Amino acid sequence: MFNKKISILGSTGSIGVSTLDIIRRHPDRFEVVALAAGSNTRMLLNQVKEFNPKIVSVLSKKEADELQGTLPRGVKLLFGPEGIQEAACCSAADIVVSAVVGAAGLVPTLKAIEAGKNIALANKESMVIAGKIMSEKARQHNVQILPVDSEHSAIFQSLKGESLEDVHHLVLTASGGPFLNTPLSDFNSITRAQALKHPNWTMGPKITIDSATMMNKGLEVLEASWLFHIPADRIRVVIHPQSVIHSMVEFIDGSVICQMGEPDMRAPIAYALSYPRRIATGVKRLCFSERDKLTFFAPDPEKFKCLAMAFKTAEQGKSYAPVLNAANEVAVEHFLSNRISFVDISAVIEACLEAHDPFELDTLEAVLYADQWARVYARELISRSLLKKRSA
Amino acid sequence: MFNKKISILGSTGSIGVSTLDIIRRHPDRFEVVALAAGSNTRMLLNQVKEFNPKIVSVLSKKEADELQGTLPRGVKLLFGPEGIQEAACCSAADIVVSAVVGAAGLVPTLKAIEAGKNIALANKESMVIAGKIMSEKARQHNVQILPVDSEHSAIFQSLKGESLEDVHHLVLTASGGPFLNTPLSDFNSITRAQALKHPNWTMGPKITIDSATMMNKGLEVLEASWLFHIPADRIRVVIHPQSVIHSMVEFIDGSVICQMGEPDMRAPIAYALSYPRRIATGVKRLCFSERDKLTFFAPDPEKFKCLAMAFKTAEQGKSYAPVLNAANEVAVEHFLSNRISFVDISAVIEACLEAHDPFELDTLEAVLYADQWARVYARELISRSLLKKRSA
Repeated sequence: MFNKKISILGSTGSIGVSTLDIIRRHPDRFEVVALAAGSNTRMLLNQVKEFNPKIVSVLSKKEADELQGTLPRGVKLLFGPEGIQEAACCSAADIVVSAVVGAAGLVPTLKAIEAGKNIALANKESMVIAGKIMSEKARQHNVQILPVDSEHSAIFQSLKGESLEDVHHLVLTASGGPFLNTPLSDFNSITRAQALKHPNWTMGPKITIDSATMMNKGLEVLEASWLFHIPADRIRVVIHPQSVIHSMVEFIDGSVICQMGEPDMRAPIAYALSYPRRIATGVKRLCFSERDKLTFFAPDPEKFKCLAMAFKTAEQGKSYAPVLNAANEVAVEHFLSNRISFVDISAVIEACLEAHDPFELDTLEAVLYADQWARVYARELISRSLLKKRSA
Repeated sequence: MFNKKISILGSTGSIGVSTLDIIRRHPDRFEVVALAAGSNTRMLLNQVKEFNPKIVSVLSKKEADELQGTLPRGVKLLFGPEGIQEAACCSAADIVVSAVVGAAGLVPTLKAIEAGKNIALANKESMVIAGKIMSEKARQHNVQILPVDSEHSAIFQSLKGESLEDVHHLVLTASGGPFLNTPLSDFNSITRAQALKHPNWTMGPKITIDSATMMNKGLEVLEASWLFHIPADRIRVVIHPQSVIHSMVEFIDGSVICQMGEPDMRAPIAYALSYPRRIATGVKRLCFSERDKLTFFAPDPEKFKCLAMAFKTAEQGKSYAPVLNAANEVAVEHFLSNRISFVDISAVIEACLEAHDPFELDTLEAVLYADQWARVYARELISRSLLKKRSA
């Protein structure tokens, strides 16, 4: 059928682990040539022993020192930004799984595109903040960007064989997260533990919080717009609490094509790796005759301010998207370490967007500048308000 | 985009009228070159005046005499089996819409395939009774058979760009018809008027009764099996009372692709005509945020015996399928004229299948022989039981 050589950026994260699960099922079809991870050297070592990559990269010299001497002979050990970039550009790789969390995934993903690698893109932030540059570079280097997000994979699958001209609009489905039925008046008392409990999906902590605020859906709107060349005003978000329909495309003839499945990230990962064919995944099969019901309704913009902000950001263009994303990353980080409350997340982002003086995003430098500006501004904002609270 | 010349067999029926509605919306894309109808000469005359076909055919000399002198100059007027065959093979046509009801559609559809015309197939009976011959002839003459049934169109759309090897199974959805929630104990008292009231679809009387008995779904299983080269044991039927999901394909990776839409035959008709592109249809758009819920459950084999008989027929092969179909046509005809009861429909079919001595279906003659045998047997069966009732 095919044989593909794979480099995984973020191999010890949730997507990385699921990717290796798929690869493990198909030793005849896939070969791991590079693994890049952060600081989970213990898990990484096991992955290296099982999959025999040629290149391994870790967060910093500290983690590299930990691994030194433990790796099988012939494995090249690297670290830091140069290390992950070398893993991304590994000459043996056909496809790079970009699964680093947050804006940190941008530069290695761009390097992989420049090296002509097809990208299985789980790092939505890189498309959100630098969609224009990513798309242009992909076109220049004749590279395919295969979405790994379940929603974008569903749209990608629904568009198979179709003409983009025949698309009327896209419908991103959203589970609504853990606070779908929580009244707005209770949002002030939401705890970290509550926000980390997603009803349907098992994911990393950042994306789980993003699902609770629905910023995840907002980032997905921005990502979908760049991936499928559809303006955000032709992208709709529908709450579908069962997470069975992963997203949909409505065409000009009134037909809607959608992809469904049990919520399991192995399905979109496998599709990105096996595209245009399909392979066994171990994902549980849907059983319609036992299924209770599928429901749909509109998201509440008062409760999920992050979603409304993301739509506004898409409409405004310019440097607002990296600001939205960076402010969100900082706010979520502070929420996860119990320094700000759940409702503070959207307040921090809103304040950053309001204070931002926008500019065009034609270069990587411009993107990184907007990203850095928002991080600094958001951190200062949070420190100042924490100081105020302490002195109060 | 494209320009297609169309011949419609069965232009005054429900599918024919909807086909002309689509054509009317796209005068730049479609041209009507032939219209064949039965005895509704009044409607046919209006169609001829509006669409200017080159060939018109009617049921018999009687209808031809009625139309004689009323048609615009240059229109060729034909009648009977030769007439409809000439309309089917009309040299100017690119695509033939096969929308005659019942087994009568078989011969003209085969003639159109032999003439190299692509077929928009609404006449499912031809595929049910002669699937092997239809498929072989289509392959020989390099002809595309584009399904018009909403379920098969949904599967055809869901398979776009996919490999048949990657299909795990097909799921045909069924509304369940008007008697979904009627207890089996009340089936004896079902009236013609009740059976003609379909909850979701507006269709002709034959297919509406077939929906009430679920024989329609059974015939669809047989049709799908031939159209998509999938054995019936890999086709499942699921009751989905809202008729929003028109059918689905589950792939080996656990993904399900489906097509949805408001129940309106113009959508699958337009898709068959515009394939592989899509065109505006006038079909109302689905609105998910206002939609209540989609439900699914297994059909009750005790209530819907016709469905179980169709699955058994598919498994048995040989000449059982034309017998099932012909016995059903005769039984429905007698039910519609109030000569047998609703539960008699499945009883007549069952008796015919039991009495049938099966043979291979390698030739059209064999198909027509099985069809005729079942018609004669079913009619005799009904007459005898009516006589018995009268004498009782």
